[in-house]
Amino acid sequence: MSKEITSREKDYSQWYNDIILKAGLADYSAVRGCMVVKPYGFALWENMRDQLDKRFKETGHQNAYFPLFIPKSFLSREAAHVEGFAKECAVVTHYRLMKDQDSGGIIVDPDAKLEEELIVRPTSETIIWNTYKTWIQSYRDLPLLVNQWSNVVRWEMRTRLFLRTTEFLWQEGHTAHATSQEAIDETIQILNVYAEFAEDWMAMPVIKGVKSINERFAGAVDTYCIEALMQDGKALQAGTSHFLGQNFAKAFEVQFTDRENKLDYVWATSWGVSWRLIGALVMAHSDDDGLVLPPKLAPIQVVIIPIYKGDEQKQMIDEKVKLLMEDFKALGIRVKYDSDENSRPGWKFAEYELKGVPVRIALGERDMKNNVVEIARRDTKEKISISMDGLANTVAVLLNEIQQNIYDKAKVYRDSNITKADTWKDFESFLDNKGGFISAHWDGTAETENKIKDLTKATIRCIPLNNIKEEGSCILTGKPSSERVLFARAY
Amino acid sequence: MSKEITSREKDYSQWYNDIILKAGLADYSAVRGCMVVKPYGFALWENMRDQLDKRFKETGHQNAYFPLFIPKSFLSREAAHVEGFAKECAVVTHYRLMKDQDSGGIIVDPDAKLEEELIVRPTSETIIWNTYKTWIQSYRDLPLLVNQWSNVVRWEMRTRLFLRTTEFLWQEGHTAHATSQEAIDETIQILNVYAEFAEDWMAMPVIKGVKSINERFAGAVDTYCIEALMQDGKALQAGTSHFLGQNFAKAFEVQFTDRENKLDYVWATSWGVSWRLIGALVMAHSDDDGLVLPPKLAPIQVVIIPIYKGDEQKQMIDEKVKLLMEDFKALGIRVKYDSDENSRPGWKFAEYELKGVPVRIALGERDMKNNVVEIARRDTKEKISISMDGLANTVAVLLNEIQQNIYDKAKVYRDSNITKADTWKDFESFLDNKGGFISAHWDGTAETENKIKDLTKATIRCIPLNNIKEEGSCILTGKPSSERVLFARAY
Repeated sequence: MSKEITSREKDYSQWYNDIILKAGLADYSAVRGCMVVKPYGFALWENMRDQLDKRFKETGHQNAYFPLFIPKSFLSREAAHVEGFAKECAVVTHYRLMKDQDSGGIIVDPDAKLEEELIVRPTSETIIWNTYKTWIQSYRDLPLLVNQWSNVVRWEMRTRLFLRTTEFLWQEGHTAHATSQEAIDETIQILNVYAEFAEDWMAMPVIKGVKSINERFAGAVDTYCIEALMQDGKALQAGTSHFLGQNFAKAFEVQFTDRENKLDYVWATSWGVSWRLIGALVMAHSDDDGLVLPPKLAPIQVVIIPIYKGDEQKQMIDEKVKLLMEDFKALGIRVKYDSDENSRPGWKFAEYELKGVPVRIALGERDMKNNVVEIARRDTKEKISISMDGLANTVAVLLNEIQQNIYDKAKVYRDSNITKADTWKDFESFLDNKGGFISAHWDGTAETENKIKDLTKATIRCIPLNNIKEEGSCILTGKPSSERVLFARAY
Repeated sequence: MSKEITSREKDYSQWYNDIILKAGLADYSAVRGCMVVKPYGFALWENMRDQLDKRFKETGHQNAYFPLFIPKSFLSREAAHVEGFAKECAVVTHYRLMKDQDSGGIIVDPDAKLEEELIVRPTSETIIWNTYKTWIQSYRDLPLLVNQWSNVVRWEMRTRLFLRTTEFLWQEGHTAHATSQEAIDETIQILNVYAEFAEDWMAMPVIKGVKSINERFAGAVDTYCIEALMQDGKALQAGTSHFLGQNFAKAFEVQFTDRENKLDYVWATSWGVSWRLIGALVMAHSDDDGLVLPPKLAPIQVVIIPIYKGDEQKQMIDEKVKLLMEDFKALGIRVKYDSDENSRPGWKFAEYELKGVPVRIALGERDMKNNVVEIARRDTKEKISISMDGLANTVAVLLNEIQQNIYDKAKVYRDSNITKADTWKDFESFLDNKGGFISAHWDGTAETENKIKDLTKATIRCIPLNNIKEEGSCILTGKPSSERVLFARAY
């Protein structure tokens, strides 16, 4: 397979797929809409997962595990939820296969039909709240702060690597509280965890906001979200945190005795991010030469490549690198020495560029003599020759600088792509010619939002949390509005 | 729910279930045969998983992720594999639900029938080897050392918490090699990883061996295993590592060009352990008062319980414990201070005993005055009063001692329950009256093994790797045999 990548300008979608496939993050599978995450992509996911998991635990959450299957009838219990999720699902109807006497192949045993079909979880509110019923009796059992890392299945018609796949890995938090305020606080706390992770670790600036009714999670009272901007001017929802009110507690009859010995329904939240974040990471920072990874999440932060002729030079470099590696590891830097003799340095340079390794160090015989190495930054492509003395420390500082630079670049791009529109003509023109977020007044109705979506394919990404109140008139209907909201075309 | 536990003597099965449920490890679910792992049980699983994962990575393996679903036809590709796994499976036949106009409920949309049914993976050899076909062309692509942590589904008729559930979490390693010897070495390497983990971390002695043909994994050339002994005298297979020869490479046409530019089929291994290990851990060490956890895996290693009257005493103890906690944490000890005012010390003592916390520290006003604490060991139930000076260090040493003691106890029990039988009468009598492993001669045929199973419910657990060659005659048929094998009734 050629390692050439389609340019963003030529075909943004193809550029994205090329990077995922050629950098070795993932692969298509034999199962429609499902993908294989390759070791390099999975190492990236593990780094993201471990960081998020650490933050969940620091804020008092514990992991648990609930069944993959949901009895079909559970989905109907919460009225809004069923509308949203009881559609494109994988349905298990049988539990046995048998040999086909005619063909010798295997067929589904018609006698092994389930009495009630099982749905492969598209999300787990129903099975979890059915369980919470037996776990919660009193205010003493609250709050219940549980998260699970799991796979879920939504039978998507149009799929796209990482961004929209039939099966995907994610985490879903499901918490139960004694009061409405406590549940809302939890929803916001997690939103902040997501936002900090996106900005500090993914180097991806996000806008925190609340969804309009149309874009709300099926069964939620309010859906909070973080929204990011991709390089093609489309928005991407990177995480959601839902205040579920008492909807699921009522649907599954989960009541508790409060401190005054009164019976009340439990208040709920749920929140999740998925491997979609990998898609966001790729689209936020990468370039026409491949991935650009923020150092904090890069599976390999530094790669060292020897340049030599003959065994003697090789051996000399090997010995030096061995010492350097120890210094790097002592500082907790993830370093790889690629001394594979089957590939040339030039090939390796391109390979690690494609894979987005933040820092590449080349070391040849002349460098050895001069006690220097050549360092190349993936983000800026700058190359410098620097001393081997204190190299690990120099690189540690450089990695922080790269992390910051990647964030700053994305931030400048994002900020320069939030455009105010005050006329419908501007609104349409900005969307078509510039893209990005369009900040505009809206009359607050689902009807208008739908019309705008039909006319332009743009949706309300969110009503920013720190929004300024401002009198104005709806971009489409001219009706009065008290604040601007952010529209965009989105992934 | 009463926290009383049925005694082992009265009803071993019930004792096991009582511990799982009442110590808060897991719960039944609304889905037949599936269970919910509660936070305390999941924390235990995370500790096991993290340790194993570390060892896999240290031995050069990388994690990846393959689809949950397997096209039905894939299962038929490997002749032995289909016999073993294409039976009790969850089968996805449809991909959409719809509203039932009559009942208002939801039904499966008959128009959304899949052309080819999908099987929820019972194990992933087939989907993975179908993928490896595109990843492996040359010896340069080998070895491929991949593991995945995932859920799998086997439609078990009789289920039991952790030991046999319809859905379970596990890891499955799938490696590809250029030579037979390299694949065999890998199989043994992983067997050793499993054995060391079982002994050093789970404090559970195991016997390493190879399976007889009857007990071999469907599709394997050889299945290696570690076998442990439970307190009721039944054996438990705790992990398996399979040498798959070229069976899956042939079934999925995975060939590579070797160094001599010759085309050959790839050599394979697969290996796995599951959350069944939690069941093994419970059965290996626990007693009639609840769980006994080895310190290395215990989610809480030390619990501190204050004993006080009034706020003033409480505050004084709180302050002291705060300092002690810092010492514990500095040594990496997982410590919990349970200062919950809603429960009495006596209730807490019983609760942490039930949960198997290795060390309990009680601290009252008089202890404060005397600068001592009361320490209770979960394994021996011994209580001692010791100085608060250097407490964390004292406890660190004690935790190691407990780890060793739990192992030693299990080892003495296991070793005293391997019994040689040289007559059929002894064989039956030992099985019925003593249990454990019976070391006996066997004529090497599947027929005899089946007969013995029919007569006694005992199977050959393994042919130990370090077996001594010894002439003898088969316990059932009297035919010549060159070594003893281990029989047992098993989970």
